[in-house]
Amino acid sequence: MHATLLYGAGDVRVEDVPDPRLVHPADAVVRITAACICGSDLWPFATGPAGGAPARMGHEFIGVVEEIGADVTSVRKGDLVVAPWVFSDGTCDYCREGLTTSCAHGGIWGYGDADGAQAEAVRVPYADGTLVRLPVAADSALIPGLLTLSDVFGTGHHAAVRGGVTAGSTVTVIGDGAVGLLAVLAAKRLGAERIVLMGRHRARTEIGREFGATDVVAARGDEGITAVRELTAGHGTAVVIEAVGTRPAYDQAVGVVRSGGTISRVGVPQYEDAPVGVGSLFFRNVRLTGGAAPTRAYIADLLPDVLSGAVDPGRVFDVTTDLAGVPDGYRRMAARESLKVLVRP
Amino acid sequence: MHATLLYGAGDVRVEDVPDPRLVHPADAVVRITAACICGSDLWPFATGPAGGAPARMGHEFIGVVEEIGADVTSVRKGDLVVAPWVFSDGTCDYCREGLTTSCAHGGIWGYGDADGAQAEAVRVPYADGTLVRLPVAADSALIPGLLTLSDVFGTGHHAAVRGGVTAGSTVTVIGDGAVGLLAVLAAKRLGAERIVLMGRHRARTEIGREFGATDVVAARGDEGITAVRELTAGHGTAVVIEAVGTRPAYDQAVGVVRSGGTISRVGVPQYEDAPVGVGSLFFRNVRLTGGAAPTRAYIADLLPDVLSGAVDPGRVFDVTTDLAGVPDGYRRMAARESLKVLVRP
Repeated sequence: MHATLLYGAGDVRVEDVPDPRLVHPADAVVRITAACICGSDLWPFATGPAGGAPARMGHEFIGVVEEIGADVTSVRKGDLVVAPWVFSDGTCDYCREGLTTSCAHGGIWGYGDADGAQAEAVRVPYADGTLVRLPVAADSALIPGLLTLSDVFGTGHHAAVRGGVTAGSTVTVIGDGAVGLLAVLAAKRLGAERIVLMGRHRARTEIGREFGATDVVAARGDEGITAVRELTAGHGTAVVIEAVGTRPAYDQAVGVVRSGGTISRVGVPQYEDAPVGVGSLFFRNVRLTGGAAPTRAYIADLLPDVLSGAVDPGRVFDVTTDLAGVPDGYRRMAARESLKVLVRP
Repeated sequence: MHATLLYGAGDVRVEDVPDPRLVHPADAVVRITAACICGSDLWPFATGPAGGAPARMGHEFIGVVEEIGADVTSVRKGDLVVAPWVFSDGTCDYCREGLTTSCAHGGIWGYGDADGAQAEAVRVPYADGTLVRLPVAADSALIPGLLTLSDVFGTGHHAAVRGGVTAGSTVTVIGDGAVGLLAVLAAKRLGAERIVLMGRHRARTEIGREFGATDVVAARGDEGITAVRELTAGHGTAVVIEAVGTRPAYDQAVGVVRSGGTISRVGVPQYEDAPVGVGSLFFRNVRLTGGAAPTRAYIADLLPDVLSGAVDPGRVFDVTTDLAGVPDGYRRMAARESLKVLVRP
């Protein structure tokens, strides 16, 4: 079958790889009908993989179950399913608490011996814990929205939940990528009253406004901080969602958060150390929360609203391609010509 | 009157200073009957003040109201009162939310033109917002316990509250100073089931056991982390209270916190940057919270239990002295000969 491989910085290829097959009794094999390219894929695309062997890419997919192992009970051959970006056993303490990203048996698509999802098919470990059946056809108009349950909508939702967004909240969202925009949608869905979106790409911030942003601040750094403070009587907002992952974005979050407020990060940090002392978080009692989003745990909550059309997270896809178009999709997203690329293998 | 002045590292003197007097209509003048030396006083005592002028010291006190300004309505001459370590107006948004440390008009005793509490008397700004009447006599046996409401018990309580301690919680407390021990007491009071106290001073950890610690780990660093993980099936505890303020203590907190758990800091950070990235907090969804404790906001909740004897936070005082003995009190605490020194001016 064909799968996407990252050979190094800027070097993505679609090549033949062995077909996936069942290895463990809890496995399933899923033929992928919809996948996509993630903003987080752009980090390795920019910097190259660590080792010498090419890396399998893609961690978001919808597909049709082709084969199941002897222990699999929750899905059957022919079912349309969605998978979160982390597979997990569904039975350990962490999974039962909803922190599937900390599952002892979990893993991320494309890492170790796990298949990547920008491909024709994948072996799914712990199919019962990982997969969720979808009550639609593979060609449903809802597929783009349902595909965001793999990662970006669930991640935006995680940011809002961890940030403590509730009815009447005032929120700043830093970043107008797919996760930032879906954090706006998630915050709105949870009842946020005021949502300030910090982003510079007008086509994207317009989607943010459709999703519920009440204000858009295009400025960054000190200028952006000043602008948000001016919108909030000098105080900043009680919740700040950081959906970029750079140190400047972190610093911006510290600058716009209200004293006693919460910074919720879902942009994968491209830094390890950052200011957390008296002058940044401590004296003002600012909480730092968020992290890798256990999107599997949120599907049950979010799915009905996607199916009903109450929310339309699939709006973040602006390009659709086949597998052969994946390398160009990386290029387009890296160049910010495209917000998020949908892949139909 | 006499007051305590810090001239530089290791150089604390008790000298004559002008008597405090009313300046603003919201002020009171309070004659101090009980004060104390704080672990946080030991940082400037070790490193010396930043400027040239000596610094007024002390931020915890009980005393008798001697004079009130024209606008003061909540206390009267002759009342015994306790003051938190931060004075605050009691009327701004932050004060009404219970974040008195972020009061726009607030300040810390000994900073700027504010008097220090290791003295015979102080001018109290915003007396109505700051002071709380105590229904006991100035020579009550409850005074040591009530004095901890100024800072250390309220700070331990803040750590537990921000850490999310509730009935059945499992908590690690890092640090066997007065704040660490009172964080144990606060966690126990809030229903924590298991409390691991990390501290090396046996006399102190014994008080920790009296306060509710179920386990004591004397080891530090990697060895200490391993010990706590061994006590918790390899996972660490869901709540970690960091009551020291050094980078090694922070690293220890990261090491013993369970995935999905919370690090609540109340030790004043002696660092600004620390690890918060993928490898430390982010991937494991660890929250970082805590901060400068708004102890004024907690007095109403804690006072009844101190008055009833349900808790005895005054156990942290092991030496009592007069003002003349304050310099030796600093020396004793810095040398860890004393846990916390009570000052009766």
